[in-house]
Amino acid sequence: MKLLEERIRRDGKIRENGEVLKVDSFLNHQIDVRLYNEMGKEFFRLFGDEGVTKILTIEASGIGIACVAAQYFDVPVLFAKKSKSKNIDGTVYVTKVHSFTHGGDYDVMVAKDFLHPTDRVLLIDDFLANGSALRGLMDLVYQAGGTVVGAGICVEKAFQPGGDQLRSQGLRVESLARIAAMSETQGVTFC
Amino acid sequence: MKLLEERIRRDGKIRENGEVLKVDSFLNHQIDVRLYNEMGKEFFRLFGDEGVTKILTIEASGIGIACVAAQYFDVPVLFAKKSKSKNIDGTVYVTKVHSFTHGGDYDVMVAKDFLHPTDRVLLIDDFLANGSALRGLMDLVYQAGGTVVGAGICVEKAFQPGGDQLRSQGLRVESLARIAAMSETQGVTFC
Repeated sequence: MKLLEERIRRDGKIRENGEVLKVDSFLNHQIDVRLYNEMGKEFFRLFGDEGVTKILTIEASGIGIACVAAQYFDVPVLFAKKSKSKNIDGTVYVTKVHSFTHGGDYDVMVAKDFLHPTDRVLLIDDFLANGSALRGLMDLVYQAGGTVVGAGICVEKAFQPGGDQLRSQGLRVESLARIAAMSETQGVTFC
Repeated sequence: MKLLEERIRRDGKIRENGEVLKVDSFLNHQIDVRLYNEMGKEFFRLFGDEGVTKILTIEASGIGIACVAAQYFDVPVLFAKKSKSKNIDGTVYVTKVHSFTHGGDYDVMVAKDFLHPTDRVLLIDDFLANGSALRGLMDLVYQAGGTVVGAGICVEKAFQPGGDQLRSQGLRVESLARIAAMSETQGVTFC
């Protein structure tokens, strides 16, 4: 998606010897909601004929784009929560996700009430690198007996293995910007 | 806001002897994005003439409604983050928030790059009870020298002190549903 690629080129910042792409001025801390809207429209163009019944994302930075995109699909959003809070009682589906950004594993969960065997679920997230979050979300849907129709990703670090691994396992992954390489001196190269 | 009050009456669940209102089927776990849209429109009706330049919320459950509301204001969303991640370098404003749901204090922060003295900030959050999150968000804006134009809240537990305290301190607080009392036997009474 040209609009997102241009924005990454203009406002993205590469840090830590090409390891980290900061897009926190428009994507995952401060949010350009117009851009989200264009991305939501694009996800709908890509997945609009898949009979999506629910969009599943993971807190925190997936929630905004999932909600804006859901307006086009006219379906509910469900976000997997990172810790068990007082406000969720009853039974939950739980899975483990590894965070490369923060280090270590953590549990995410969704209430069983909100995922069903009849659900056709679109996964949405802001970043895809090693794919751990997506695998966790897929696992939650499978525990419920539902169907994953695919994953809509804002930015894929295609030089990390997650996207290709998931595609080779049969998941339809659509990333609006796919980064082939990045470095502090040469900037971002898209696929 | 009638639509939200009716929804709370229909789908809200009162737990733990009237202490906890579960609205996780439509507001803060599974999300009814159409309802968010109507709430966003209402926030715009209330605050649309305040010259808002930015909407500030706190992760995780404020992000969705903030993003949907921001479409009406046509301004960026900024969400305060609960922990320092690798993806935020540089300087940040930090403040402490007390969580009554989880117990204990935690730090929230925003990057200094995204809050300025010229900003007129609308705070948005899903719940208001003791007001700790709102006070934290106000503090972040004041640290930046910006102006808080008010707070748009989805559900206020008006039987807890936060809302009245903040109003008496001069903050304009607009809550779309204000709960006067609730109990497992009698349900919810709105103000």
